[in-house]
Amino acid sequence: MAWLTATYLIDAAPDEIEARASALAIEQSVECPLAAIGDQRVLHEIVGRVAGIEPAGDGRYRVDVGLAVETTGGEPAQLMNMIFGNCSLWEHVRFVDVTLPEPLLARFPGPRHGIAGIRALLDAPQRAMTSTAVKPQGLPVAELARLCKTFALGGVDIVKDDHGIANQTYSPFDERVRACQRAVLEAVETTGKPAFYAPSLSGTPRVLRERARLARDLGVRVVLVAPMLIGLPAFADLVDEFPEFVYLAHPSAAGGRIDPVLIFGKLFRLFGADAVIFTNYGGRFAYPRESCAALAAAARAPWGTLAPALPVPAGGMLLERVDELLEFYGDDTMMLIGGNLLIARDALLERTREYVAKVEGHGRTHVALHA
Amino acid sequence: MAWLTATYLIDAAPDEIEARASALAIEQSVECPLAAIGDQRVLHEIVGRVAGIEPAGDGRYRVDVGLAVETTGGEPAQLMNMIFGNCSLWEHVRFVDVTLPEPLLARFPGPRHGIAGIRALLDAPQRAMTSTAVKPQGLPVAELARLCKTFALGGVDIVKDDHGIANQTYSPFDERVRACQRAVLEAVETTGKPAFYAPSLSGTPRVLRERARLARDLGVRVVLVAPMLIGLPAFADLVDEFPEFVYLAHPSAAGGRIDPVLIFGKLFRLFGADAVIFTNYGGRFAYPRESCAALAAAARAPWGTLAPALPVPAGGMLLERVDELLEFYGDDTMMLIGGNLLIARDALLERTREYVAKVEGHGRTHVALHA
Repeated sequence: MAWLTATYLIDAAPDEIEARASALAIEQSVECPLAAIGDQRVLHEIVGRVAGIEPAGDGRYRVDVGLAVETTGGEPAQLMNMIFGNCSLWEHVRFVDVTLPEPLLARFPGPRHGIAGIRALLDAPQRAMTSTAVKPQGLPVAELARLCKTFALGGVDIVKDDHGIANQTYSPFDERVRACQRAVLEAVETTGKPAFYAPSLSGTPRVLRERARLARDLGVRVVLVAPMLIGLPAFADLVDEFPEFVYLAHPSAAGGRIDPVLIFGKLFRLFGADAVIFTNYGGRFAYPRESCAALAAAARAPWGTLAPALPVPAGGMLLERVDELLEFYGDDTMMLIGGNLLIARDALLERTREYVAKVEGHGRTHVALHA
Repeated sequence: MAWLTATYLIDAAPDEIEARASALAIEQSVECPLAAIGDQRVLHEIVGRVAGIEPAGDGRYRVDVGLAVETTGGEPAQLMNMIFGNCSLWEHVRFVDVTLPEPLLARFPGPRHGIAGIRALLDAPQRAMTSTAVKPQGLPVAELARLCKTFALGGVDIVKDDHGIANQTYSPFDERVRACQRAVLEAVETTGKPAFYAPSLSGTPRVLRERARLARDLGVRVVLVAPMLIGLPAFADLVDEFPEFVYLAHPSAAGGRIDPVLIFGKLFRLFGADAVIFTNYGGRFAYPRESCAALAAAARAPWGTLAPALPVPAGGMLLERVDELLEFYGDDTMMLIGGNLLIARDALLERTREYVAKVEGHGRTHVALHA
């Protein structure tokens, strides 16, 4: 008998929290009145258990629920169903953490490359890394390719598609990936520094597979995928079928009642994300500073045999904040700055160089001064 | 130039709503500062547009945003990305409606069977319909099959797996579907009344396809799928590849910042759900009565050439409430009562018959009295 623990924040008055916690444990396991269950094994080995209730302030409680590992079938979709299926429909419930016992955790291989694999690919053993986004969608392929080349000439490690770029008539997938991949390779020939184009992969599973094959055939090594948009189970399939890609996970469609620290810091990694893009504090999105720190720490923390995932803060990042952000996140981080480079328009190459110099030079002055 | 309209409820003070609405329109389209865009076509034909802002009470505004149809690429995942991708990450945003122009709507075939197809399958041209759930998970296959048979002998139209039943060691998919399908067919031979077993299909896309094939080979006609659990794009693929199934859509994992009326009443139908299970007012979940009415109305309403989908209220339904609920929802409805039948234990057959008699007899007495 093995149990996993799912943790929720539940809004409740003191006299109703026990009932709410117990209702959640039943809803997430047998989903029927206990009076309807005659089977003793089910009562003892399948019904979810409230394992702890702690006040969490502001009329909320932190509730640990034990769920039988056997109920997950060791599968991605069913694991999600057990830990946050029906109870996602309750406005008073927020899903904040999950602890999986070793044999269950071992069913999910996690990142195939992780931080170490990305560092090896980029030939960047220690420094913080850079990425940027080619945008906006609507530009013709030649213009997207020109942006790719400029960014790579400027020294950016990973040049990704904006996540809104799919297979639109103005930049069809096939034509775009060919042109952008070629553009980055040309720049690499000039600079001699590794750089990688990461196309955005989306679509229904069948389309996704076709696009992944095409990208692989073109020599693409890094891809951008939004796991909640394509669905976590489809993401797990993709990673399994195309383990050679480094996966950058995008947060699109991931808003809801799963805590950002959990979804970006743990769940995406569990299902195979090598790097997780999340919205940085002080940008266009309002995650608190401490959530960002916790998220980055969770992505990198020891967790069974799962490789650490690389945190990628993003969303309205400013070149001027690079030093502050690297002080905050440390070197096992990839910066993602897009729009704030593009505003330079004709001076894009110079601004890109400035970005790369800032990130790669971070901390060096101090070292020199100390020496 | 065609535009779709996505509608959001945005929490904002009066002096910040215009900025928030405009930020949303940019986030959901070009996702960068307008100052970074030099291309006039992008500025005029791709950048999202705030089309209307109306106060909605309680510090909220109802905001219509026009998004270029071209940006969706006519694909399920990218449509979701455009209408509720990054903005899902904003706690102050709730996604409440979408209006698609005819040519875009025509890219999504919707229900293959819909209400009319389900009625034909069940040989129930006018009356309200019945369904129930085999549960709890953890029971051995023989017991699940026995429950299936009892329900079908009692006259229930559709006997579905509980959505927590996947491919666990205690009831492996293959063995379970064979046994349950056979059990229902045996009951049908006895009663002479059509009844259908609906297995729960879940898994990563590759697993899902294998299970769907097996179910089809066994003669299954109706399946249960949770679109938000497997992912809406995977659901769209499944419906496309297995159009012969009647799809009951389950709400698991669908909680978040998409309004229930929109997700269950419209989006599930758009992607192919023939019937939508939703949590009824006054049950274990707290949807307001008016949301339930709006949801059922939306599922059945004329919408391009999409067939109407069947509303299936569920979640802590009581036999005693059947008349009230049928008055409320009308005859184009399928009741779903599970646990409240199972509490009868040894008297399950009798209680099931009572359920079926109540639903099928609803309104008849009145007719007789008037005659």
